Amino acid sequence: MFRALAVASVALRPRKAGQVWTMASHQLLVSPPEALRKPLSVPSRLLLGPGPSNLTPRVMAVGSLPLIGLMHKEMFQIMDDIKQGIQYVFQTQNLLTLAVSGSGHSALEAALFNVLEPGDSFLVGANGVWGLRAADIGERIGARVHTMLKDPGGHYTLQEVEEGLSQHKPALLFLTHGESSSGVLQPLDGYGELCHRYKCLLLVDSVASLGGAPIYMDQQEIDILYSGSQKVLNSPPGTSIISFSDKAQSKIYARKTKPCSFYLDMKGLANFWGCEDKPRIYHHTVPIISLYSLRESLATIAEQGLESSWRQHREAAAYLHGRLQALGLQLFVKNPALRLPTITTVAMPAGYDWRDIVSYVMDHFNIEIMGGLGPSVGKVLRIGLLGCNATRENVDRVIEALKEALQRCPRNKL
Amino acid sequence: MFRALAVASVALRPRKAGQVWTMASHQLLVSPPEALRKPLSVPSRLLLGPGPSNLTPRVMAVGSLPLIGLMHKEMFQIMDDIKQGIQYVFQTQNLLTLAVSGSGHSALEAALFNVLEPGDSFLVGANGVWGLRAADIGERIGARVHTMLKDPGGHYTLQEVEEGLSQHKPALLFLTHGESSSGVLQPLDGYGELCHRYKCLLLVDSVASLGGAPIYMDQQEIDILYSGSQKVLNSPPGTSIISFSDKAQSKIYARKTKPCSFYLDMKGLANFWGCEDKPRIYHHTVPIISLYSLRESLATIAEQGLESSWRQHREAAAYLHGRLQALGLQLFVKNPALRLPTITTVAMPAGYDWRDIVSYVMDHFNIEIMGGLGPSVGKVLRIGLLGCNATRENVDRVIEALKEALQRCPRNKL
Ligand SMILES: Cc1ncc(COP(=O)(O)O)c(C=O)c1O
Ligand SMILES: Cc1ncc(COP(=O)(O)O)c(C=O)c1O
Repeated sequence: MFRALAVASVALRPRKAGQVWTMASHQLLVSPPEALRKPLSVPSRLLLGPGPSNLTPRVMAVGSLPLIGLMHKEMFQIMDDIKQGIQYVFQTQNLLTLAVSGSGHSALEAALFNVLEPGDSFLVGANGVWGLRAADIGERIGARVHTMLKDPGGHYTLQEVEEGLSQHKPALLFLTHGESSSGVLQPLDGYGELCHRYKCLLLVDSVASLGGAPIYMDQQEIDILYSGSQKVLNSPPGTSIISFSDKAQSKIYARKTKPCSFYLDMKGLANFWGCEDKPRIYHHTVPIISLYSLRESLATIAEQGLESSWRQHREAAAYLHGRLQALGLQLFVKNPALRLPTITTVAMPAGYDWRDIVSYVMDHFNIEIMGGLGPSVGKVLRIGLLGCNATRENVDRVIEALKEALQRCPRNKL
Repeated sequence: MFRALAVASVALRPRKAGQVWTMASHQLLVSPPEALRKPLSVPSRLLLGPGPSNLTPRVMAVGSLPLIGLMHKEMFQIMDDIKQGIQYVFQTQNLLTLAVSGSGHSALEAALFNVLEPGDSFLVGANGVWGLRAADIGERIGARVHTMLKDPGGHYTLQEVEEGLSQHKPALLFLTHGESSSGVLQPLDGYGELCHRYKCLLLVDSVASLGGAPIYMDQQEIDILYSGSQKVLNSPPGTSIISFSDKAQSKIYARKTKPCSFYLDMKGLANFWGCEDKPRIYHHTVPIISLYSLRESLATIAEQGLESSWRQHREAAAYLHGRLQALGLQLFVKNPALRLPTITTVAMPAGYDWRDIVSYVMDHFNIEIMGGLGPSVGKVLRIGLLGCNATRENVDRVIEALKEALQRCPRNKL
């Protein structure tokens, strides 16, 4: 596989003995930075943007546990616990289920890098930033990308998807369950079945929706599903979770080319995560402490129960929507059935600069809310009620802040 | 750039109203896992393998701080602090200096994905597993890879490198400063200059050596340097650090193709890390808590001073080497000037199975040491003295454990 270079047999010693150590020719030219003399201090804030969300006390506590090695039996147990927790929150029995050592984006790349080969046809629902991102990554790896472009606020009907499938014969379809840049919840019933009739695999992004809106990976015939740690799960960012159906796994194992990344190569990861019946081999150093947190997050939602978590988010969102409307604000997504319960998009009230409102709420109330992202910039404000933050009390706090911001921020200066 | 699909204009409402919520057709079929009912508990262990190393109390403490948002000014300050800390430990003034949101492997991929384009000639010093890994990733992204293969224990002289450069006209040369699978410290004086005479960039892996052996990025004309968080820096795994010279940056900005990864695309990362003079735009959710830890690690080594840290590792290693030899053991790297001070490789004593020794030390002393990796499996035991673990006391503990293991483990059963 590698072309070995014939190298002349020369002595292995450095020219001058001891040279490695004395480094007589070099000296320290860059000094220790002043800024690092101060110890770290961070404020406590209420994070009601589209994520990350605040951590639960249980998750925070394990952030200070001692480190163990990545090949220790306790670590393998933690990884097994995580896999089972993912199977529960995804409602899947898939064996190829694991955490990726990176943020939501790296789970998306893990999906595309492993499932797509150069030249594969890839159909993308792009009704906001996440579809555009999937299309971009698809092009980077040489897929033939077909984008079904919609303005933010749109979603995809079965009929629209069927037209795309029959026209482009894709190997893979990408849909975003919770479109966090527009606030749309994409329906998922029937899409997996439809894809399979067209010999296409279905990839779903549930980074912003998981735990907040129902999803049933196996029953909805989703082939690849991924999510993040820092939204409803209330874990620190840095890990993400992913699962592959048997069909997706078969496509991966039938590849003719290696994925462009070793780090995200699912064959190596499957082994290290014990998804195969073989001894585990070191693949890369997984983020051990972040995995402690992820385990505790999954344990928390398993304890609460998925249905109760879905209900909590539905109720908090309904209360938020009512109070926003009572302030005279409009929800960006008109159809209530298509509103993402975890992240609410408020149509930008006329005459305001979104930056003023977001800054006011941060500066005067220590609360994070956000403007739009990508195609929704300038069109919306985004308020997230994620996991432990999905409470009436937090809604009251953010409404009070918003109300004051609308009174105090300059209007019609644009 | 994207081919928009003309979609029929159909009603955006789901077929049955309320369908999204009631999900009448689905039910929870996967139950909350039993294993997640138990709270997490992890043992305290002395980690004297090749990494990860134990965390310092200061690093552990920040693992439980509250989360802030990734676009908050305090977070930008933390990232700026980290950049300066990296410039110090690398001894560089490079502006394109930042932390990667993944382990050491992802820093290697960040280097190769951004600097190499398909068809580029890539020369690799492969005297252990890390060069083989770099070659593998180079082939994945379509570079023309030329491997200078050596048995573990070997290193590369200036003359050997020059032969490779003149024969293969590479755009990039990869060398491993601290070859943690073999225990070799690769000399670096003169290599950057030599590469530049051949219009080649120099990429150096210092994951296992940084902070333990001198390296001077700018003075040694290294174009791309990366390291990990979990070795001498005593941070949790999950982040890595990287820096690019102006020459490397020019090659990146002159690319004709996009790197295969969005997550590791240095143009997006440079902006988000404030390496450009432009407002920062969200790129991906960085591992906020892990960055707290990384900041504290860099502050710790800045406080101690690089030269003092190098001395500490040199002295601890010398003490370890002496005590190992007094036990009758042989060091795997014969030339003292080429021994990596952070990770010591012991030639496998005849007649033993390395697994027995490693298990004995773990089971009876709660200390992690390791066998070989890749080409060095079965040939060595590896003992790491990384960062705060580089003390005489730890040497005494591991020597006591090893001594007993050698007495008690079966011999000549092979
Ligand atoms: C729906 C969705 N997908 C993907 C991502 C990307 O995740 P990350 O920022 O963790 O890379 C996000 C993050 O906000 C998201 O909301
Ligand atoms: C020299 C060297 N390079 C690269 C790596 C890979 O780092 P990681 O396991 O963090 O991906 C290691 C890890 O042990 C290493 O020692």
